[in-house]
Amino acid sequence: MKNILLTIEYDGTAFFGWQRQPGKRTVQGELERVLSLLCGEVVTIAGTSRTDAGVHAYRQQATLQGDFGIPTERIPIAVNNLLAGPGPYAVGDVRILDAVEMPPDFHARFSCVGKKYIYRIYNSSEPEIMPRNYFYWVKHSLDLVSMKKAAAYLTGKQDFKSFMAAGGKEMKTTVRTIYKADVVTGKMRGQGLFSYPEKEISFEIIGDGFLYKMVRIIVGTLVEVGLGKIPPDAMKEIIQSKDRRRAGHTAPPQGLYLAEVYYKKEDCFKEGERQNEN
Amino acid sequence: MKNILLTIEYDGTAFFGWQRQPGKRTVQGELERVLSLLCGEVVTIAGTSRTDAGVHAYRQQATLQGDFGIPTERIPIAVNNLLAGPGPYAVGDVRILDAVEMPPDFHARFSCVGKKYIYRIYNSSEPEIMPRNYFYWVKHSLDLVSMKKAAAYLTGKQDFKSFMAAGGKEMKTTVRTIYKADVVTGKMRGQGLFSYPEKEISFEIIGDGFLYKMVRIIVGTLVEVGLGKIPPDAMKEIIQSKDRRRAGHTAPPQGLYLAEVYYKKEDCFKEGERQNEN
Repeated sequence: MKNILLTIEYDGTAFFGWQRQPGKRTVQGELERVLSLLCGEVVTIAGTSRTDAGVHAYRQQATLQGDFGIPTERIPIAVNNLLAGPGPYAVGDVRILDAVEMPPDFHARFSCVGKKYIYRIYNSSEPEIMPRNYFYWVKHSLDLVSMKKAAAYLTGKQDFKSFMAAGGKEMKTTVRTIYKADVVTGKMRGQGLFSYPEKEISFEIIGDGFLYKMVRIIVGTLVEVGLGKIPPDAMKEIIQSKDRRRAGHTAPPQGLYLAEVYYKKEDCFKEGERQNEN
Repeated sequence: MKNILLTIEYDGTAFFGWQRQPGKRTVQGELERVLSLLCGEVVTIAGTSRTDAGVHAYRQQATLQGDFGIPTERIPIAVNNLLAGPGPYAVGDVRILDAVEMPPDFHARFSCVGKKYIYRIYNSSEPEIMPRNYFYWVKHSLDLVSMKKAAAYLTGKQDFKSFMAAGGKEMKTTVRTIYKADVVTGKMRGQGLFSYPEKEISFEIIGDGFLYKMVRIIVGTLVEVGLGKIPPDAMKEIIQSKDRRRAGHTAPPQGLYLAEVYYKKEDCFKEGERQNEN
């Protein structure tokens, strides 16, 4: 049995999130169905992040144990053909980008030491219809300087209980380390799917782990800072209060993208530093 | 009763086309439902173009007769709020851009003398998942020079029977006048929803009318020219043959956008000439 690491891209719009659920179309469920067809026996996969319904991924990762009878690097093509549906130019809403063999003790979730999420806002008085499932449309003008200032309070090892939604799994601790949190305008480097250079505001966050809906609650809070409803320096007190009611609203899922998974701590730091230089 | 002209934008992905059909979600059906709610009595609308399932519109137009008890220019806001669903930042997949009162004899379809369609191709060896419902993904490299050469044969008053699909309405004549037909790379002017400056190929066509699936069959033929399967000069013979079997495949609906409607012949010419200068 090989231990295989998959890198996966998906559009979360038509999925009930990542995690397998009976009778519902989920990313894990869809991938396991097709991988099992290809393998000839039941395949289960362990994903790094259990993204919610409507949340997208540029680079989700998952491990599986199996023997496919084909070279590992051929798995993406075989699976993607089954996922895309008929026609030479059909494109499905989930796609395997890469498959590599890993040592037996490697696990996509337990070996992971950090993740990067991107949250995309379309800030314009008028909405755009076609990309509505890929951005959070914010109608009123956002003040980027205030948002950047507020975001700066997020880095470091802190208790992020104020940004945890009810309904998630029981956590031993709500302390997390954030390596990078920044707000920028224009297209994010390397993410060229849509482009509104002047109307797009992106939030990028790298951390060793995230609480239930943490990124979306942080973004909702930053939006309220950008709208002038919360002063930027209040971010510090919001964190210290450990009170969900002090933070802002939960931003909708369609703006959120899982963008990177890290297995070495130095990569989290490096990525944070390198991007801060931009 | 006022005669009102609506300008409408929509994402055709989740609609069974424009035309009202019992039990199916169509753009006309959805607009009539909401306009009737607002008006307090049954409103029917007449659209300029009956776009197929999956086809989008930047600027569809439609006329209706009714009294809404509010100023005409307030109709878009009132309707869009009902179309978008709950939440201050919700965005629906159809939206009224503009409403203006017109003389009683004006009709969105019968007064129309020309239309512009844009067809968008994403030409790259790897597909992109998120915008898959807004482009035709063509995997193999397309030769733009050949495509432009072939497209040049389309202009003028000609019989376009070779590009008419079976199953449409009976037509008195299959002769149409094409004012402009061009293939360009990069983002189309004024259509900034998505942007792949180097990988996007757009086809723009302006004509006094179009046969059933005509633009999609023309694009399918141009793609085969771009792939080297059909020589560019064969376009002339394909037109002259009046034989559907000589033309290429029907390009899929998701790349097609109704982009403009004209009510004056000189606007069709002007637009064609102006854009040819770019």
